[in-house]
Amino acid sequence: MKILLVGATGTLGRAVHSLLGPRHEIVAASRSGAAGPKVDLTDPASIAALYAEVGRVDAVMCAAGGVPFRPVGELTYDDLMAGARDKMLGQVELVRRGVEAEAVADGGSFTLITGILSHEPISAGAVAAMANGAVDAFVRAAATELPRGQRINAVSPTMLTESLSKYDASFPGFEPVPAELAAKAYRKSAEGIQTGRTYRVGW
Amino acid sequence: MKILLVGATGTLGRAVHSLLGPRHEIVAASRSGAAGPKVDLTDPASIAALYAEVGRVDAVMCAAGGVPFRPVGELTYDDLMAGARDKMLGQVELVRRGVEAEAVADGGSFTLITGILSHEPISAGAVAAMANGAVDAFVRAAATELPRGQRINAVSPTMLTESLSKYDASFPGFEPVPAELAAKAYRKSAEGIQTGRTYRVGW
Repeated sequence: MKILLVGATGTLGRAVHSLLGPRHEIVAASRSGAAGPKVDLTDPASIAALYAEVGRVDAVMCAAGGVPFRPVGELTYDDLMAGARDKMLGQVELVRRGVEAEAVADGGSFTLITGILSHEPISAGAVAAMANGAVDAFVRAAATELPRGQRINAVSPTMLTESLSKYDASFPGFEPVPAELAAKAYRKSAEGIQTGRTYRVGW
Repeated sequence: MKILLVGATGTLGRAVHSLLGPRHEIVAASRSGAAGPKVDLTDPASIAALYAEVGRVDAVMCAAGGVPFRPVGELTYDDLMAGARDKMLGQVELVRRGVEAEAVADGGSFTLITGILSHEPISAGAVAAMANGAVDAFVRAAATELPRGQRINAVSPTMLTESLSKYDASFPGFEPVPAELAAKAYRKSAEGIQTGRTYRVGW
């Protein structure tokens, strides 16, 4: 199948690319455009342009979406809005645009990224939690309404082993999981038949 | 205690007011300003002005927050943003502003509203699901970081009995719950000692 992978150059995106590249045609989109089309999840026009550039795909996978990490007492309203526009509305917009026939094929799938912080708080992670919880719930609801046999799932990993050196202090005592294992959840979502699921990976 | 009740004139807000009015001093804020201060949850300046007008309170309760109801295939980006700004960021902003000492007292509490749609989809309810899931997760995370002994919980009711005539067709087979029972969860949150909880009411 032809897969549009957003966030292809990040730690998780590279693992998804490695796992699925030999089996499928991957369009490797990212914010930098380093490996394929450029896209800014916070900009609906950029997402529309991405679909127009790439043409119809069979699956959309997102491994991107930023959120600010600051303690609740130090957050600004702009921080809240930044998290909302990027990881949350950016991913929802990928789906909203993708339900159109020219964007994602009949029977196609969407696989979004969330994460453990929706349920296991860490310091300064409230906006991340908000975005993750929003996308998990959106996925459950949207699965019931997608047209043309389309499906949707979320992948919710704990901290990735590859990020241990950078984030160990923020995730004390969290058992990390290899990005490769999270990538398998993307495969399960796209090649399988399930919908409306959040795949917890490593927790 | 002095309680700032936002959404005081709605079905749920009136039930909260009835239950807690005899026990506490209630400031009944609403969009219309019909029973007290006027506030627009989508406008951070309006929330700041509300806290300035009301002065320090011991508890903040929110029974307000709109979301557009449209099928995923008919949603616009403006719909997504409207849901994000109102029920989600509006409530989060009540907390963000409320952590300041002049707004909510030491040991004070926040009680936000979510709802069953985060887990039980209905037609056209994807944006509601998104907002509910976001606030439930934010509550879990923010509870760990609130200063000065402040606490935070969410109340997540199923359809209210009082709304049956209006919404029965949208919630087929859902057993409704009286608003009075949801109001008790607000009391549990404010008078009790729990934090980081989502109280499911009727489901």
